[in-house]
Amino acid sequence: MKSDIDNIMKQRNLDALLVTGPGFQNPDLVYFLGGSANLTSADIIKPRDGEPTLFCNPMERDEAARTGLKTREYKVYDWQGLMKQADNDHNKAHALRYQLMFADMGITRGRIGLAGKTAVGEAYATFSELQKLMPELILVGESEEDSALLRARITKDTGEIEHIRRVGKITTTVVGMVADFLTSQKAKDGVLVTTDGTPLSIGDVKSRINLWLAERGAENPEGTIFSIGYDSALCHSAGINTDYLRLGQTIVFDIFPCESGGGYFYDFTRTWCLGYASERMQAVYNDVYSVFNTIMCEVHAGVSCGDLQQQTCKLFEERGHPTVKKDPKTINGYVHSLGHGLGLNIHELPWYNINNSKVKDTLAAGMVTTIEPGLYYPEESIGVRLEDSVYIRPDGSAEILAPYPYDFILPIQEI
Amino acid sequence: MKSDIDNIMKQRNLDALLVTGPGFQNPDLVYFLGGSANLTSADIIKPRDGEPTLFCNPMERDEAARTGLKTREYKVYDWQGLMKQADNDHNKAHALRYQLMFADMGITRGRIGLAGKTAVGEAYATFSELQKLMPELILVGESEEDSALLRARITKDTGEIEHIRRVGKITTTVVGMVADFLTSQKAKDGVLVTTDGTPLSIGDVKSRINLWLAERGAENPEGTIFSIGYDSALCHSAGINTDYLRLGQTIVFDIFPCESGGGYFYDFTRTWCLGYASERMQAVYNDVYSVFNTIMCEVHAGVSCGDLQQQTCKLFEERGHPTVKKDPKTINGYVHSLGHGLGLNIHELPWYNINNSKVKDTLAAGMVTTIEPGLYYPEESIGVRLEDSVYIRPDGSAEILAPYPYDFILPIQEI
Repeated sequence: MKSDIDNIMKQRNLDALLVTGPGFQNPDLVYFLGGSANLTSADIIKPRDGEPTLFCNPMERDEAARTGLKTREYKVYDWQGLMKQADNDHNKAHALRYQLMFADMGITRGRIGLAGKTAVGEAYATFSELQKLMPELILVGESEEDSALLRARITKDTGEIEHIRRVGKITTTVVGMVADFLTSQKAKDGVLVTTDGTPLSIGDVKSRINLWLAERGAENPEGTIFSIGYDSALCHSAGINTDYLRLGQTIVFDIFPCESGGGYFYDFTRTWCLGYASERMQAVYNDVYSVFNTIMCEVHAGVSCGDLQQQTCKLFEERGHPTVKKDPKTINGYVHSLGHGLGLNIHELPWYNINNSKVKDTLAAGMVTTIEPGLYYPEESIGVRLEDSVYIRPDGSAEILAPYPYDFILPIQEI
Repeated sequence: MKSDIDNIMKQRNLDALLVTGPGFQNPDLVYFLGGSANLTSADIIKPRDGEPTLFCNPMERDEAARTGLKTREYKVYDWQGLMKQADNDHNKAHALRYQLMFADMGITRGRIGLAGKTAVGEAYATFSELQKLMPELILVGESEEDSALLRARITKDTGEIEHIRRVGKITTTVVGMVADFLTSQKAKDGVLVTTDGTPLSIGDVKSRINLWLAERGAENPEGTIFSIGYDSALCHSAGINTDYLRLGQTIVFDIFPCESGGGYFYDFTRTWCLGYASERMQAVYNDVYSVFNTIMCEVHAGVSCGDLQQQTCKLFEERGHPTVKKDPKTINGYVHSLGHGLGLNIHELPWYNINNSKVKDTLAAGMVTTIEPGLYYPEESIGVRLEDSVYIRPDGSAEILAPYPYDFILPIQEI
């Protein structure tokens, strides 16, 4: 939570944070702004135990002021003069301006955590230059696995939970609309067709998903996975738009929208088979569903994410499936980790990866995490994943923020 | 164009490019991928005069293969071993992996241009570490004003132009729908209301814009400016969702959508007054429209962008308006630059800013540029901007990719 930032900075010996980039699609900055803002490029400097200051372009001063943060316009620094001083090197001029900005904040020494998202080349050159200009500052680039701001963001306040819950409701509404749409079609020669006999494609479904999300005030900036058959067995394949909707094939539908204009995400997966499933598909589904239910009962405050991942592997292994525990490089069976936190990023703390020995997270009140076991068999063109997003409530219990049924087979009428 | 990359690398003495980040919302990488791809994180290393190699997660190998690029999976590098070697420092392990990746590409010395978009802290720490590990490599962070890839992307091939033209058509279709929607409402006490008498707000208009874009396969990841009255006079204010649609106030409608899932942008602005305009508003509008038309006739291959900006300032000054030429910090009159290139970024080369002495661009065949003069008077709550996106054709002439009328006053019936 925001109220944890100063403590985390103290633990990490950070004297200030510099958060940079645009005011949208940039979670670290959006977190301070209290929502996406139409700022093409901005900086926030936050001293430990001090108030953050938002630096903005003069053209965007009112947009900046609306955030309620203390603001300062870049125009107080003479850009043309700085460019001249920097021999017209844009990145050097930026570094010189940062030097003035830090001086104005009274920061001339100490450890500065870098945060935000921007162009790699410019960031590397500008901050390398700044480090040379201000050797008494130590610029600290933390890992995106566990930066100070990600660590603060690992728990959410009730306002944030309501945002996530709202996106969750939109998500399951749209999933229901997709199910209704599919089951209201008929199949001909094993393929869903419209009333005029045209085969329906994944592209047709995805354009409806985009539309139905937009109608409800959500968007999917990172796409949607709606993959069938072989592609469903590649857990990150988004699906091929021109693929037809064939009966008797596993469909992995993984949808992760956020609030329109950028904001909090939800993450949700169901696996469907149109019309019917082979015995093998049903057996794989049953194993995933059973493991999902067992693990869900274990999700509460105080449980280590690594232990949950270990237990998931154990449960799958008992059912005869290969897992990443036995072979970290396997592409068959259970090939990924159990879940991840979500918030302003679709993937954020806590992490469940047992192969990452640095980050050891334990579930705690205020966290929101996905639980998403799955099984994948590319050679058999079978993929199954089930996922809900879960809030750890103040009393430590788990709550699925947007419940939805777990049907596997969607009945389809054949012509 | 892509075919220019090797030449530009040679001019800049770059021996290879390293492009990093996700396969979406990351123009440098998307440019190589030939479109957005569902890659959560990836790297491309492209040697000068050599083929690019795409490094990807094993889970995303098929998504990567579909790009047609030569691919290599990260799993060939032993991550657990690298983490151990790096004392569990994630960024150090990343740097060690880059060292192996460069070695596999036969690159052990020379100048490497860094490109792509990712977390600032991680980029700074990882590449600082890599620079220490491989002192014989020189990591070059170019400015986002003029990086090698932006320079290549300044001209578009015919396939890219068709993408931009298609988004342009969607844009003007939606703008027409918004105009129809507004003029089909009635006004009561100077405010647009629905049939049941509820006042219409900017939020109501924006949610329709999002919907109508989604229906047509476009999205607006960076928002839409639909600002009225005082806000229209702040050229980057996105407009306030709860503001009502009042008659007789200037509305700046600046819409910049891109293809769904990320891709090419279009950029377009009209200024409207509902019902009527004051004499002063009409006069300001006439000045912008007149300057817009004069400048449009000057837009063709061989003209310097800086000269066009100078000429725009001169034309506005002749009409008695303050400009950035006389006072770079003015917030009244003509306060920004004439336009910018567009493509996979909404803002890219060429630049028109006369105050930036480094980048001197001249229009050339294959470029796409906005032309967007405007006048702003916050104290009078008046803002006017007109913008079209223009393609410089192979014969050097200019073509507006999606033409649309320039009406100022939208007639509204009053109850």
